[in-house]
Order: sequence, then C-alpha cells, then structure tokens
Amino acid sequence: MFGPGKADLLEHIEKTGSIAAAGRAMGMSYKRAWMLVETMNALFAEPLVSSNRGGSEGGGAALTQTGRAVLAHYRALEAATRNAGSEAIAAINSLVRH
Amino acid sequence: MFGPGKADLLEHIEKTGSIAAAGRAMGMSYKRAWMLVETMNALFAEPLVSSNRGGSEGGGAALTQTGRAVLAHYRALEAATRNAGSEAIAAINSLVRH
Repeated sequence: MFGPGKADLLEHIEKTGSIAAAGRAMGMSYKRAWMLVETMNALFAEPLVSSNRGGSEGGGAALTQTGRAVLAHYRALEAATRNAGSEAIAAINSLVRH
Repeated sequence: MFGPGKADLLEHIEKTGSIAAAGRAMGMSYKRAWMLVETMNALFAEPLVSSNRGGSEGGGAALTQTGRAVLAHYRALEAATRNAGSEAIAAINSLVRH
C-alpha cells in the first residue's frame, strides 16, 4: 500500500537527495527508510527512487520520473479529497461535543 | 473518532432496531457494540442512538435525529471523496506493478 508515510519519505528524499537524511528527518532508522524504499520500488512497475549506495561520495538518492509522478498524483489526491470532503466534515464537526 | 466502523454500526442499528442485532450482523460482541454506541453518544453534543435496555419487549434502539444526520453526512463524505479522488487513484494504479 502507498500512503501518507511513504509519500512524505519520497518528498524528503527529493529535498535531501539521500535516503538516510530523509529517514532522519522523519525520525526513522536508516534501515527502516531503506526497507520502505525497497517496498515502494517493488510495488510499482518502475522504481520510485534511484540510489547509489555508499561509495566515496557517500551515495545519494533521487526520485525517478515515476517517483515524481506518484508523489504528484498522491498530493493531488489529498488536495482533491480534502476539498471535496470539507463541507461534510464541517457538518459532522458542528454536531460534535465541544 | 468517527469512522467507517461506527458508521456501519449506526446503519445496522437503523435497519435492525437493535444494538445487539447490529453488532451480530458485524460479527461483534454485544459488549463491544454497546461500548461503541456509548463512545459515539459521548463524542457528540446529542446522543446518536436512543435505546431501551432490556425490559419485557427485549429493549430496542433507534437513531436519533442527530444520529441520522451524522450518518448521512458521513456517507456524503465518502461519496464526495471517492468521486474527487478517483482520477488520481486511477493515475497511481496505472503505475503499479500488475
């Protein structure tokens, strides 16, 4: 499944250029961040993240074209559903005990 | 929090006129169904479910006006978000490994 945590991880990888730094920014272990990236890469027909592990320059990671597309579609999904649901959510909230 | 499980329970209470029968229809213990109803009733400014516990007619339950309103708003929320998100979800699914 692709959800908010994986979307945030992709966004941090895009910003930092590093899986380790992206994981750190989310309070996540290096191992867990790598595991999530491997899970995402296996879930889609093309990898979402390309990476050079280690090496003299300390590795580096970037979103692939598919990774950027998935992230953009996911953010669009969030915005569209937030917008579409706002009226019903406000109606429910108005009935909640305050 | 109000979510899909509580909405379904309300719907079953509306159909069956009984908290116990609604719980059974969802594979839920009598105790758990009652606990969820009490949680919902406490969450909103007015109770969502009115009930007569036990008695010679074996009790009975119904949605209050607030209960019907919350259920209707929740179903509207689901329909609106499903509709608004369908394009982005289709775009993401087209990139998933099949």
